Amino acid sequence: MIRARVLIRPKAGILDPQGEAVERALPALGFTGAANVHIGRLVELDVEDPQQLEPMCEKLLANPLIEDYEVQLLDAGS
Amino acid sequence: MIRARVLIRPKAGILDPQGEAVERALPALGFTGAANVHIGRLVELDVEDPQQLEPMCEKLLANPLIEDYEVQLLDAGS
Repeated sequence: MIRARVLIRPKAGILDPQGEAVERALPALGFTGAANVHIGRLVELDVEDPQQLEPMCEKLLANPLIEDYEVQLLDAGS
Repeated sequence: MIRARVLIRPKAGILDPQGEAVERALPALGFTGAANVHIGRLVELDVEDPQQLEPMCEKLLANPLIEDYEVQLLDAGS
């Protein structure tokens, strides 16, 4: 089994209301100097065949119309 | 500005209904051999002071009662 991580982000140009909300909230909490905040999803899973990850993303994990995804293969132990 | 990525995961032992739903859905779509699916959030942002990231996580980005977070500093350009 191989441990994999999938990072799923809103595509550039697609509205990211969560990111905007965080970016507006940070200064109110005293954190200045944060910018370009984007919020996406993190999927971590063990797979037998890493080649299945891309079709998994296309069919279930991400919405390819509005999201980009990036697959990272981790060590088996992490 | 430094580009940072925060990975936010449900703590071990905390219910992860999204992960369970994905794990059950994968075999129905023909993907076998996936296990230990966990779903969390991905936050990417530019910060001036990376030392602010941990307090940001504690106060806004994560819920430290039920979530663990991991901060990664990326190259300025990525």
